[in-house]
Amino acid sequence: MIVDRKIVRFDSLSLDCGVTLTPVDAAYECYGTLNSGKNNAILVCHAFSGDAHAAGISPESGKPGWWDNMIGPGKAFDTNKYFVICANVIGGCRGTTGPSSINPVTGAPFAMSFPTVTISDMVRLQKKVVNHLGIEKLLAVAGGSMGGMQVLEWAVRYPECVASAFPIATTGRHSAQQIAFNEVGRQAIMADPDWNEGNYYSSKPPARGLAVARMVGHITYMSDDSMKEKFGRRLQGKSGPAFHFEDTFEVESYLRHRGSQFVDRFDANSYLYITKAMDIYDVAQGGSLPAAMEKTQARFLVISFTSDWLYPSYQSLEIVSALRSRNRDVAYCELASNYGHDAFLVEVGEQTELVRGFLARAFKEM
Amino acid sequence: MIVDRKIVRFDSLSLDCGVTLTPVDAAYECYGTLNSGKNNAILVCHAFSGDAHAAGISPESGKPGWWDNMIGPGKAFDTNKYFVICANVIGGCRGTTGPSSINPVTGAPFAMSFPTVTISDMVRLQKKVVNHLGIEKLLAVAGGSMGGMQVLEWAVRYPECVASAFPIATTGRHSAQQIAFNEVGRQAIMADPDWNEGNYYSSKPPARGLAVARMVGHITYMSDDSMKEKFGRRLQGKSGPAFHFEDTFEVESYLRHRGSQFVDRFDANSYLYITKAMDIYDVAQGGSLPAAMEKTQARFLVISFTSDWLYPSYQSLEIVSALRSRNRDVAYCELASNYGHDAFLVEVGEQTELVRGFLARAFKEM
Repeated sequence: MIVDRKIVRFDSLSLDCGVTLTPVDAAYECYGTLNSGKNNAILVCHAFSGDAHAAGISPESGKPGWWDNMIGPGKAFDTNKYFVICANVIGGCRGTTGPSSINPVTGAPFAMSFPTVTISDMVRLQKKVVNHLGIEKLLAVAGGSMGGMQVLEWAVRYPECVASAFPIATTGRHSAQQIAFNEVGRQAIMADPDWNEGNYYSSKPPARGLAVARMVGHITYMSDDSMKEKFGRRLQGKSGPAFHFEDTFEVESYLRHRGSQFVDRFDANSYLYITKAMDIYDVAQGGSLPAAMEKTQARFLVISFTSDWLYPSYQSLEIVSALRSRNRDVAYCELASNYGHDAFLVEVGEQTELVRGFLARAFKEM
Repeated sequence: MIVDRKIVRFDSLSLDCGVTLTPVDAAYECYGTLNSGKNNAILVCHAFSGDAHAAGISPESGKPGWWDNMIGPGKAFDTNKYFVICANVIGGCRGTTGPSSINPVTGAPFAMSFPTVTISDMVRLQKKVVNHLGIEKLLAVAGGSMGGMQVLEWAVRYPECVASAFPIATTGRHSAQQIAFNEVGRQAIMADPDWNEGNYYSSKPPARGLAVARMVGHITYMSDDSMKEKFGRRLQGKSGPAFHFEDTFEVESYLRHRGSQFVDRFDANSYLYITKAMDIYDVAQGGSLPAAMEKTQARFLVISFTSDWLYPSYQSLEIVSALRSRNRDVAYCELASNYGHDAFLVEVGEQTELVRGFLARAFKEM
């Protein structure tokens, strides 16, 4: 299934920081068919390094989407029944306006003059895309990690537009540790002289800094166990013990590879802006989580994974408790997995069972 | 208690990699008095970024040693009774020969021409220091983290020289995740153009890369809980929610501060060599842990901490099981703490009780 990425231009987008961007492009993809009642639409929200290409094969890269195992005919988000939308976030670098976009006022890339964006801004732009498609109410909003933050924001900000919400492997606000890991990535990028205060679009990008940032990320996405299973203490091209500085463990070459790969597909300034958006996000805006959840109307399916230490289950349970305390409809599943935070992308079997049933019921009630 | 750092020069040190260093300097400090029977000597082994200054006040920096809360009159390692020694490791940058030392052959710093060093090499040099002080058998060898690896290596390599062994918050070999975190630090340093393949001693050091490396380290030394308690989501110099890219969380400024501080006291090439020594260390040399532990004669006190996710308790339990399987004398305590890996440096109360009793019995039997 080859899918085309579409881009829609809106006259303006007002941001939480007070700035209004004019105009704004949003890149998005759609899978399945919107029914005549326009009540079978599902928005999936991508995680930090994802993009609008959630399913099918991209004609550009030839690669499947980031949630292709969950979206398609007969899959969890069944495109025989549902119409699925995914849009690249504001601040991104994959078709939607971000720091690498041209500032129409100056004719040069925004770079670090791009305004601060928030998770709420991401959702505000997604709402424009959804309305542009003629949809008033979404059957579901679903996503993992940063995508899950957008799910929460949709449910709180536009309660009347969301029938069911699937926040997966996520949190209502980052802990100090989560902020700290993001900050290391930012510092790695900004430490690279090629970053040049963000002005690298006409020279070479801060490839080394961005690669280091990505390496840190990858460690946090896996679990101690999954790394043990995947790499152990095996050396690259050598058996027996390591005795030399040049001896390389497989886990080291894997991380180096993933780090350098990332540079080809991600903009360093987007890295800075999007991680900051995650860090400053607080679904409760400094208030209490139960008070924030009081605004919601959706049915919730909250999912976390046992080995996810980046977004540990206790954070999902905080959301669940807050919803329960306000008598909201919420189901919670902690799924057993060794894959760490990556589990939301790879643990298809159980997630499919959970999502399929939940969606069917929500659709019946739409 | 002002203590003086001493430096002893040895003609040579044979390394595991096959190279012999000639000569080798070892920096060390001593606390308390060696008795006439020379049977009250305790060696404490420092962790990755530590040095020979384990206790008392340094006349140079005015600062207490890294384990000053555990070593001194009436403390766990009671200098009224015992003679305590700590030496900077080979490959280090605090008085002992390392990559920043002058290569007598070239008259220039070794830099990356310094040979690969191992935990076993560190222990071999410590043994020279201990023998230089006229001591044949140590009452105890104790240390946390990388210091704990040295404790294990002492017990396996020189079993007749160790009456009791205290490996704390440590492992017999790094997991893939532990290697991965170290590799990120190395890559951050090597990504800094100022690193210049290690040749920065006559220019400026790779301060930005080293600072990023240290930031990653600090996150792994703390726990999710301890970061939450210490920083939460508080902003630097601002109350209320963050909305701007420039808004800085306290945890961010803490990490930046600790990162830049580190540059003043640590050599980037030593960072590379010592982390590599930790990664390639395997007390079992590729064999089984029980077979390795069979060589030991010491009484063991193994300690781990509940919130230490960098050196989790299961790694200590592997050592304990291996010792038990060979009918060795081993006591194990998992201490409750929120401080993460840092607990071995700060959880003084319970460690003191455990160490004091264990040492008293070992001393009686010497």
